[in-house]
Amino acid sequence: MTKTILLKNRPEGKPSMSDFEFITEESENTISKGELLLETKYVSVDPYLRGRMSDAKSYVPPFQLNKPIQSGVIAKVIESKNDKFSVGDAVSGLLNWQTQQISNGEGLTKVDPSKAPLSAYLGILGMTGLTAYTGLTEIGKPKAGETLVVSGAAGAVGSVVGQIGKILGLKVIGIAGTDEKIELLKSKFGFDAGINYKTTTDMKAAIAEAAPNGVDIYFDNVGGPISDAILVNINRLARIIVCGAISVYNDTEAPKSLSVQPFLVRNSALMQGFIVSNYAEKFPEAMKQLATWLAEDKLKYSETIVKGFDNIPNGFIDLFEGKNKGKMVVEL
Amino acid sequence: MTKTILLKNRPEGKPSMSDFEFITEESENTISKGELLLETKYVSVDPYLRGRMSDAKSYVPPFQLNKPIQSGVIAKVIESKNDKFSVGDAVSGLLNWQTQQISNGEGLTKVDPSKAPLSAYLGILGMTGLTAYTGLTEIGKPKAGETLVVSGAAGAVGSVVGQIGKILGLKVIGIAGTDEKIELLKSKFGFDAGINYKTTTDMKAAIAEAAPNGVDIYFDNVGGPISDAILVNINRLARIIVCGAISVYNDTEAPKSLSVQPFLVRNSALMQGFIVSNYAEKFPEAMKQLATWLAEDKLKYSETIVKGFDNIPNGFIDLFEGKNKGKMVVEL
Repeated sequence: MTKTILLKNRPEGKPSMSDFEFITEESENTISKGELLLETKYVSVDPYLRGRMSDAKSYVPPFQLNKPIQSGVIAKVIESKNDKFSVGDAVSGLLNWQTQQISNGEGLTKVDPSKAPLSAYLGILGMTGLTAYTGLTEIGKPKAGETLVVSGAAGAVGSVVGQIGKILGLKVIGIAGTDEKIELLKSKFGFDAGINYKTTTDMKAAIAEAAPNGVDIYFDNVGGPISDAILVNINRLARIIVCGAISVYNDTEAPKSLSVQPFLVRNSALMQGFIVSNYAEKFPEAMKQLATWLAEDKLKYSETIVKGFDNIPNGFIDLFEGKNKGKMVVEL
Repeated sequence: MTKTILLKNRPEGKPSMSDFEFITEESENTISKGELLLETKYVSVDPYLRGRMSDAKSYVPPFQLNKPIQSGVIAKVIESKNDKFSVGDAVSGLLNWQTQQISNGEGLTKVDPSKAPLSAYLGILGMTGLTAYTGLTEIGKPKAGETLVVSGAAGAVGSVVGQIGKILGLKVIGIAGTDEKIELLKSKFGFDAGINYKTTTDMKAAIAEAAPNGVDIYFDNVGGPISDAILVNINRLARIIVCGAISVYNDTEAPKSLSVQPFLVRNSALMQGFIVSNYAEKFPEAMKQLATWLAEDKLKYSETIVKGFDNIPNGFIDLFEGKNKGKMVVEL
């Protein structure tokens, strides 16, 4: 019996349960030569998936209606007619929201459960870690002593960005939406300062106070008014790494923000949008560095683990409520 | 008798004559060893000066109240106690809005009136040409066959950007504010298409129509709603060269525009603010190339020449009404 989650409607605004459809197929999965049968163990839910649910022009084609949704998945090989994979292997790949599925092995990477828990390969040792590392180093080009601000700082990517910033000798300020998250940023992840944007009335002043030398690097996960408040505090030659815009993903009208052009001209500043796959050639180096830091206990990570296949859509929806601390993962 | 223009008030919104003060000093200018006495011939008025009239944090310190305003100036040496300059030399430099002034020669460059009219050294062979060349080549990284959109296209920088774009094999679309300017873009400067933003009701659709393959490079001189309409038409890996934001320079409240973050993320696109001096090491190469193209008649330029020292502020104010075609220069 295989369960699958399809995209039923393109969400209007915030996604809701009615945008998803569960189907159950009773038929057996039979594999052919070169194929594998995979059993899903962990499913990654990520803000960027919201973009693929819309029909807008984007870097990846939109999900099709009435087809399975896909995201990062860790699965176990339970049958194999492919020489490269054996029964019992754990693999990582972009796979369907499905309890079992057939793959030809393309795009799958074996992961080693002895080195880190399997779920870590969706987070700190997966897209999350790679996004944080490549964005901060390739676009941010950090120099020790500079000031880094991270929005969505308690999120999966943000908490890693801040820690890498500290390892590289930056002053790191995190922005998040609860006092509990701010406390976590400082106590667990070693941020120098944190700002709770929900209880701060003057964000512009709060950032100026936390970053008295101005902001050299801004790792932007959120867009919207938080980013506006940082923009007015940037230094000459500032680099803004535009990783996401979760604050506006659910807006049904095109959101307005402070005009960036005057700030960019005045400061000869850079804004660079990216997706992690742009830096695929850096992945081996990045993975090695992340694994080393993890083994040395220089990197910590948080996970919010939701249990059960049926809760994948809930887990995804909860991202937009900020209910996760760190990487949100669904365990089957 | 020396006349000088001082900044009397920091303009609120659009600059007006009452922001400037004229003073006349009767005393003789006497130079010491190493100094020169300069007589001003041409004064450059440029949109970026508006920024220096405000007290905001910027790449160059603001003008001081009750002190002379400075901009690019071409002057003749009328007395010299400096070995590097002789009486009769024409020089270019950042100098006061003043009929005569003393200099120690620092920051002055000799210019050759036999190669081009003196005023050209404030335009196509000066900051204007260098801004167009370095911005387009260093940030835009153009590849033949790509589509370039230029806003403020009939302005000093814009008209040069478009022509360099054509020389480099791009499809070039210009945006300007009168039908006469649009005609000029096509007939004189060789743009492939022009859009009059004042008579076009749906800019987004007009750009999509003029750029059916999308926009790869956007040279932004204006900011505001025009830039919003281009943003929605950018391609993956687009480069936005943020040179100016004349449409919002006079706004007294921080202007709002379409949030750029979702477009930058979706397209892995770049926005880079710059000032020409960031690329000073490229100036010799750029000057050589511009002079060659000019000699080969591959580059045309327009000037709007206003006559008389007393009209410098008027010439400057007229920039914000779009009264100039090409480089606005005041001739003494």
